[in-house]
Order: sequence, then C-alpha cells, then structure tokens
Amino acid sequence: MTEAAQNAGHKAEMEKLQAAQREKRRTLTDPERGLVLVHTGDGKGKSTSAFGVIARALGWGQRVAVVQFIKGKWKTGEKQFFTRFPDLLEWHVMGDGFTWDTQDRDRDIAAARAALAKARTLIESGDFALIVLDEINIALRYDYLSVTDVLAALEARADTAVILTGRDAKPELMDAADGVTEMREVKHPFHAGIRAQQGIDF
Amino acid sequence: MTEAAQNAGHKAEMEKLQAAQREKRRTLTDPERGLVLVHTGDGKGKSTSAFGVIARALGWGQRVAVVQFIKGKWKTGEKQFFTRFPDLLEWHVMGDGFTWDTQDRDRDIAAARAALAKARTLIESGDFALIVLDEINIALRYDYLSVTDVLAALEARADTAVILTGRDAKPELMDAADGVTEMREVKHPFHAGIRAQQGIDF
Repeated sequence: MTEAAQNAGHKAEMEKLQAAQREKRRTLTDPERGLVLVHTGDGKGKSTSAFGVIARALGWGQRVAVVQFIKGKWKTGEKQFFTRFPDLLEWHVMGDGFTWDTQDRDRDIAAARAALAKARTLIESGDFALIVLDEINIALRYDYLSVTDVLAALEARADTAVILTGRDAKPELMDAADGVTEMREVKHPFHAGIRAQQGIDF
Repeated sequence: MTEAAQNAGHKAEMEKLQAAQREKRRTLTDPERGLVLVHTGDGKGKSTSAFGVIARALGWGQRVAVVQFIKGKWKTGEKQFFTRFPDLLEWHVMGDGFTWDTQDRDRDIAAARAALAKARTLIESGDFALIVLDEINIALRYDYLSVTDVLAALEARADTAVILTGRDAKPELMDAADGVTEMREVKHPFHAGIRAQQGIDF
C-alpha cells in the first residue's frame, strides 16, 4: 500500500469513528443525580484515580470531601497535598490504620461506623460536588459495615458524585453504581521485591 | 460462635497477616532506577490515577512533568489545577486532540514524534522525580511511534519514575515495565447513556 493510500484509509477510518462518536454523543444525557463510581480489584490505582478525580474537580472550583475508612496513620503525599486547599476540600481520617495493625475488631467496627456516619452527613449536606469514600470496600469486606447502610447513605445524595474505593467491592454496591472499574494487577513492583515508593505509592 | 471467640479469631487472623507482611517487607529493596509503570485497559482511571500519583509526588515536594500525547484540545480540570504549580510541575500538551478529530495521519505522526522527543529530553535531564506520558499507548497503537524508540527513551532514565497511560499497551512495553495495571471496565456510565461529567471525566 502506498503512503497516500494508507493515509486515505486512515482518514476514512477516523471519519467513521468520529461519526459513530458524534451519533452516540447526540443521545447522551446528564445523570439525574450525582454519579456513584466504584474502584475495585487487586491492582494499583483504586484510591489513586479517586485522587486524580479530586484534582480534576478542584480544577473546576468544585467542593470535595474525602473520608478515609482504613488508612489512618500514614503520612501520605496526597493528604499533605490536598489539605493545602481547605477552602474547597475537607479530609477526614476516620480509620485507625490497616486492620492487621489494629487487631481489635470492636475498635475497627466503631471506627468504620463513625466514618460512615460522617460520610452520610457530608452526602446529605449537598455541599460537595464529589465525596470520596476511600477504602470503604475493605470495611464492607470485613463486615464492619452493612452494605444496606452504605446503600442508604448513597441514596441520600442529590447532585453529589460519590467514589467508593477498595478491593472486593460487594456485588450489591456494584449493582447500585453507575460505573465500576476493576483495577487488575498484571505486574506489581512489590512482587519483584521492590518496596513502596514515596511519591508513587503513598 | 460467641462474639469473644469471633474477636479472638479475628485477632489471630490479623496477627498472621501482619507477620506475613512484616516478613515480606524485611526483604524489600528500593529499585535501581525510577519505576516504569503502565496503566492500560478499556476502563476509566488510566490517566486519572497518573494524576493521583502527581498529587502524591507534589505533596512530597517532588518535581513532575506531564507530556500529553493525544488529548490536546480539551480544557480539563486536571490541567487547570496542576498548572497552578509551575515551580514543581511542567505540563506539555503535544497532541492535537483525539485522533479521530484530526484525520491527518502525517500531522498525528509529527505531533507524536515531537512529544516523544520532548519526553526523552525531560527523562534525560534527571530533573524530575516523575514524568507522565499521557496516552502514549494510543500513539503506539496507531504506529505513530515505534516501541523501540519509546523503550530507548525509558532506558535514558536514572531516578525518574515514568508512568505511561492508554489502552492497548504494547507487550514489549509491559515486559519492560516494573508495574502494569489493567483498568478493566465492569460498568461505564457512558454505556448507560450518560455524558462525560465536568469534574469527574475531564
């Protein structure tokens, strides 16, 4: 095939793609309420992409809240960074650290329930364009929270988008969500014996 | 099972997990060079989690560069947000928009090659803790770039971590990477007829 023919073929293919996109876009609507998005799976990027969405929302001047259900103790880059914007963002650390560090089920349950109560208050307030419930799926997985209570908190939203992160998302939660992404681990530096890196992993 | 027995069982399980984690951590080392991470797959969160890593890096005062290979024209929340930190971050828009909007293969190829040349210069400079090559996998997929040239640019790194995003990552790139995450679409608002949302999708 000549280069001219290749270019013409490319142009035709792109025009077709563009037309299909346009037709699809023509029929799209805005959601009736804020989107509910779930980030789950065993790979990297569940919380991290929620933090990326936060950057996006802040870029448009939107108000954001974060409720951390599990990772409480670590000093992280994301927390240091986003807490510099107190006019737009609230960051609530409710968890007591990784569950295997606490080994106290009652305390974990109490922390998770306090976190959900906080989340519900924030959702009901209507004050936020975006609320991130970070690692809430872990609290659900260990039955620190009931999925019924979490769904009830989500039902209380109006225009607020909510992102729920953590592996092993409950099927009922994925059913109720508008979007679900599974971050699948293909290759992880940890399994090659590399420790978590400041600025990359925390 | 009584609640006390359940709590004791939980404590034992968590202690076992904690011990396994500690043993694993004891043998971990830092990487010899900056990590190369690939975000691919058909789901949401490939670029977005790279933006989350940027927030993390900025939180630690690290220097960051972004080279956008494809998404050139859109006004996005992430660009509006991160370009507020010019002391730490450089944001290079090299692409001319989505490929199906340009329909000019020669121009797309020229833009992709200019983007890679810029990326290589930034990588070689050693000035950055993190460089994001956003949507470079799309440029590779359309053969606007050769994977050999991209791998050569990555080989030029010292301590700089590099994140490469975009669906359909080349196998040679995934082989060379330290970490690969596939963002798998389980459910997407777009397929329910919902248009892209400001603050969530851009």
